[in-house]
Amino acid sequence: MTEAKERRSRIIAALVDADVDAFLCSSSTEILLLTGYWPIMSSSIAIYTAEGNVRLIVPEDEVELAEKTSSAKRISYKPAGLATLQSPLELLRAPIRQALQELGLEKATIGLQLGEGVQPSSYAVSYQFRSSLLDLLKQLLPDSSFKACDDSLESLKAVKTAGELEILENACVAAAGAFARAEAVIAAGLRETDVAAAVQAAFETSPEARQFERSYGYFFCMSGPNSAKAAAAFARTRDRKLEMGDLVMIHGNTCADGYWTDITRTYTVGEPSGRQTEIRKAIMQARAAGLKAIRPGVAACDVDHAVREVMKEHGLGEAFKHAAGHGVGFAAANPNGAPRIHPLSPDVLEAGMTFNLEPAAYFDGYGGMRHCDLIAVKEDGAKVLTQF
Amino acid sequence: MTEAKERRSRIIAALVDADVDAFLCSSSTEILLLTGYWPIMSSSIAIYTAEGNVRLIVPEDEVELAEKTSSAKRISYKPAGLATLQSPLELLRAPIRQALQELGLEKATIGLQLGEGVQPSSYAVSYQFRSSLLDLLKQLLPDSSFKACDDSLESLKAVKTAGELEILENACVAAAGAFARAEAVIAAGLRETDVAAAVQAAFETSPEARQFERSYGYFFCMSGPNSAKAAAAFARTRDRKLEMGDLVMIHGNTCADGYWTDITRTYTVGEPSGRQTEIRKAIMQARAAGLKAIRPGVAACDVDHAVREVMKEHGLGEAFKHAAGHGVGFAAANPNGAPRIHPLSPDVLEAGMTFNLEPAAYFDGYGGMRHCDLIAVKEDGAKVLTQF
Repeated sequence: MTEAKERRSRIIAALVDADVDAFLCSSSTEILLLTGYWPIMSSSIAIYTAEGNVRLIVPEDEVELAEKTSSAKRISYKPAGLATLQSPLELLRAPIRQALQELGLEKATIGLQLGEGVQPSSYAVSYQFRSSLLDLLKQLLPDSSFKACDDSLESLKAVKTAGELEILENACVAAAGAFARAEAVIAAGLRETDVAAAVQAAFETSPEARQFERSYGYFFCMSGPNSAKAAAAFARTRDRKLEMGDLVMIHGNTCADGYWTDITRTYTVGEPSGRQTEIRKAIMQARAAGLKAIRPGVAACDVDHAVREVMKEHGLGEAFKHAAGHGVGFAAANPNGAPRIHPLSPDVLEAGMTFNLEPAAYFDGYGGMRHCDLIAVKEDGAKVLTQF
Repeated sequence: MTEAKERRSRIIAALVDADVDAFLCSSSTEILLLTGYWPIMSSSIAIYTAEGNVRLIVPEDEVELAEKTSSAKRISYKPAGLATLQSPLELLRAPIRQALQELGLEKATIGLQLGEGVQPSSYAVSYQFRSSLLDLLKQLLPDSSFKACDDSLESLKAVKTAGELEILENACVAAAGAFARAEAVIAAGLRETDVAAAVQAAFETSPEARQFERSYGYFFCMSGPNSAKAAAAFARTRDRKLEMGDLVMIHGNTCADGYWTDITRTYTVGEPSGRQTEIRKAIMQARAAGLKAIRPGVAACDVDHAVREVMKEHGLGEAFKHAAGHGVGFAAANPNGAPRIHPLSPDVLEAGMTFNLEPAAYFDGYGGMRHCDLIAVKEDGAKVLTQF
């Protein structure tokens, strides 16, 4: 099946399953899912009908980019300029009405995202419509009904097409050089900010990253006791100076035209101590156990269990403070994104799913070590996309 | 008046003016406005009552940061971990209920953000609640009513306190070194990605940037014909190689603990041509005319007019494709943020307002030049915060 047909058949199946006539999305991630284009300013709309008809509504200054990655039929609109002070939603009113008419959706059931969710950063600022998009749609479509389709869209994002997997694999290749650079520069006396900036620059200037239209990297460096804090929901680079013997964690979230990676490697300043070598051994054994457990049909909680048991055998059960992984691809980190590799997860692995596998051990006041790979589920088991 | 009292009295006046008993906000920018803390993952809540009582609800892993910048009374909650698969909004339910009870808001009129708006990026990913927060509040507060207070909060953000102005001024000082670095590295043969990465690294590693807990820089380089495209709503760094004679635009949006700058400088590769010198002369004269027009009580459209007239006198009216400025501070760029320095703007300047002033000229296929400063309105006129 061609790439376009593969995504198309999945979206149509999800529409049928959700019992709606169309999805209408304004969040950049779901627009990427439905059209292949990842909007910059989040002032775009995608509509996808159960007949497989699509409209991508974008501001004129994003058309050049949109046509490079999306073959969806496009309606462009003039963004705010000198002639008007209207807001994006006011400017979207006419093109949304036009799209709904063209698609025959005046009297229909429209699937929307109404609940909470994670969105990756697509620019220094982005638009959010909050309740106002639904209010506008109710005005435009007095004879239609609206249905929350958050779960359908979340499930659709969990399983990638062959083409999407290829982009993610190339995104991981592009990140490899940055981690090689990290290993080369880490030295006592440098600040975390120095290391993070060097790694970031290595990524942004690499030919592998430049192959994408938009390639962003968010790289973080956490050293010594700061690396113990990396069990939090977020990473942070501080101005601490690296010291001999430190654990140094480099965490990277990189983006290739809207598809995200989530990668961590941990280094030491100087030769690793006996304790550090033991921790690394445990983590790499836990990783191997996790990889071995991964194949279609397996419960995601069993993968977490496989990883966690090895950590426990090494006396590191308490130190492994978070789940063994979570869905990655349409966002760098989505704790609610399937498959959740979590002790309580109800998710079941399917071929095409992508997630991170991140065995780790954190010791307050001392440091933390994490090895976080991006994994794709293939018919015959796990494929590690982060081959470095 | 002390910093805390100044912001407090303005918020209370806005609450009285909006005729609500409290503001309840989940967007990071408005939480910063109400409490001084800029949440990382956007899974926090701030409540501010007309009596001046405040609650800041944050996940436990953000408490360390929150207590550094906010003196608001805090309720922390355990973020998602091994013990639960609950989403942020489910985890927020109990602390929101507790806060509403403590503040006596069980039967009240609550002001919310329900409409569209701009949010700056606070991390690689962030939460959005869409319609679900209002749904939760309706469950928790069956006897309360809810009112859209988007405009009140937008107005509050437009006028900064003395302390907020000081942070913005320091943020501009921190950005100065990055632009000096840009001027030093720009050379024929380098790619835009190389220049942007060098500038970004200079910013991230500078002592001035490290004085803030969180200091992010989004720097862009646009050269030759690419700089002509910078009239768009966004900037983009591409992989074009700089050539002798190019105009090279460096655009930076930097953030200091949630307060943002919006700065552009344009350089030339090699000596400027006669045409480039003429354009620069026009832009700097237009800037001077704009600065001269700025003082409290002046219509924002008159400032745009002052800038635009000079551009027209130089035959550059058509080339100056956008408004002369917009509100900056709580976001890098908010086209709907007051004061809009726009031909159609209804806004009137007040002391404490901050905005960018960005005379520019764009010529398709050739290049663009923009000089974008961050300006504060003082009692006696304009204060340029970007003194470089």
